[in-house]
Amino acid sequence: MNLFGGIEAGGTKFVCILASGPQEVRAETRFPTTTPEETLGKAVSFFREQSKTQPLHGIGVSCFGPVDLDRSSPTYGFITTTPKSGWAFTDIAHYLEQSLQTPVAFDTDVNGAALGEYTWGAAQGADPCLYLTIGTGVGGGGILNGHPLHGLVHPEMGHMRLPHDWQADPFAGACPYHGDCFEGMAAGPALEKRWGQRGETLPVDHPAWGLEAEYIALALNTLICALSPKRIVIGGGVMQNPELLPMVRRRVLELLNGYVQAPAILEQIGRYIVPPGLGNRSGSLGAIALAMRLSESRES
Amino acid sequence: MNLFGGIEAGGTKFVCILASGPQEVRAETRFPTTTPEETLGKAVSFFREQSKTQPLHGIGVSCFGPVDLDRSSPTYGFITTTPKSGWAFTDIAHYLEQSLQTPVAFDTDVNGAALGEYTWGAAQGADPCLYLTIGTGVGGGGILNGHPLHGLVHPEMGHMRLPHDWQADPFAGACPYHGDCFEGMAAGPALEKRWGQRGETLPVDHPAWGLEAEYIALALNTLICALSPKRIVIGGGVMQNPELLPMVRRRVLELLNGYVQAPAILEQIGRYIVPPGLGNRSGSLGAIALAMRLSESRES
Repeated sequence: MNLFGGIEAGGTKFVCILASGPQEVRAETRFPTTTPEETLGKAVSFFREQSKTQPLHGIGVSCFGPVDLDRSSPTYGFITTTPKSGWAFTDIAHYLEQSLQTPVAFDTDVNGAALGEYTWGAAQGADPCLYLTIGTGVGGGGILNGHPLHGLVHPEMGHMRLPHDWQADPFAGACPYHGDCFEGMAAGPALEKRWGQRGETLPVDHPAWGLEAEYIALALNTLICALSPKRIVIGGGVMQNPELLPMVRRRVLELLNGYVQAPAILEQIGRYIVPPGLGNRSGSLGAIALAMRLSESRES
Repeated sequence: MNLFGGIEAGGTKFVCILASGPQEVRAETRFPTTTPEETLGKAVSFFREQSKTQPLHGIGVSCFGPVDLDRSSPTYGFITTTPKSGWAFTDIAHYLEQSLQTPVAFDTDVNGAALGEYTWGAAQGADPCLYLTIGTGVGGGGILNGHPLHGLVHPEMGHMRLPHDWQADPFAGACPYHGDCFEGMAAGPALEKRWGQRGETLPVDHPAWGLEAEYIALALNTLICALSPKRIVIGGGVMQNPELLPMVRRRVLELLNGYVQAPAILEQIGRYIVPPGLGNRSGSLGAIALAMRLSESRES
């Protein structure tokens, strides 16, 4: 099997793996995201070391954003206007390509994770499918008609506006751009700001979780109406509370109210809205799948 | 040029054309949607008459729904659970295929219209693009990675939930399934129920239109976040007020608040959210495009 490099480039940490698929992960390293120089330098060192003993057939990157995915753009493969200190307009794809002398496939963190789950995980064969992460931020990507969701830029599902019942939840939201958008109401920082403590310290029966399930379900309801996905994979730190996903599923059914007449929703919601099948490797294995696709397209 | 039949099968009226494209419409007929027997009978008669003098290479149908688009399903090509009296579980595709002995391509009314606008109209070359109609109902379709948006079922963009400021708008919504979803707040029947008069009789400076622009802009903001379309085409009876589209564009820019850094949005919103380029033939010409695609796929 040809070996590829996969990088999940997150705003908090980087995960680098050498693999040909989920059953064949030869090496893995994780390190915190510091400056671009240091962080990308560590990634390059890891792959240089690994490629001494086994040839690398390409690298994929599932990258935090916003990113530029337009191949005709001078900033293709860059992180663009991120508020993350030091990272705005950082060249990722060309830098790795030149440092490692290997082809680089590049996409958003969530499109990468979606491709990983679609190729080997919980969304195998489900086209269209969506992957959402609810953690430090909220993001979403997907596979549709065989390819990751690209567009004018790329989806920014965390910034959809949702119904906000101000009586039930007077919190104004934590998004610096939009206040009470999905991310502003449901990401980790919103939980912490609303309740005065971090989400992982809130008891599983705390009212925070009912509200959290409400916003996630409203967002999923919207995405079901907008895209009619065949499966939705939902990961991220906030989803670690095991009570949350069942609450989300129940509320999605209530919101749809029988309108979308699909047995997959009406009878099998537990198999329709699911946790990642690849655990914490959706993004890094998705990056492997991105690299494999690039390699196949270059060969054909 | 090969001639095809195109049917825009709407809940209010049917439009049937014989054409090879927008510059070559040989015949057209329009009639109200009554019973399935009478209405489909008229369509069949029209095409039988036309095909006496010129061969028909296939028929496309842009159909009101919900519809079944799953080719492996026993009800493929049917209108399914529509509340429209007499039309639930009506076979459209096989009936036309057998009556006219010609291949039939079948999709939703809005996917058909999206394909028409993508092929010849205001969304040429814009992939992904979306087509929305705001009229008796609200619906949306699109083209993504080269093909119409299909999924578990098909999009139901009219049933997304939107933020609802109950102080500014105490109207509870007109959707029998969801109350204040997009369609429940912004379709023609919602306008009439809220203001006690039909939309077309409301003066262009009536407060109804500011509220209407608000809901449409919230929906477009959500769709931009979910799908990152390269162009949005928006038609339907409610959009006939010429003041409405400029208000929608301004409000979309306010809602996005500079977050999506794309010149197409920030500098050229007037070319980003646009009326149909094919006038009132988006659906029927889109049906021609569906039939042409089917014909090409059968030949290759």
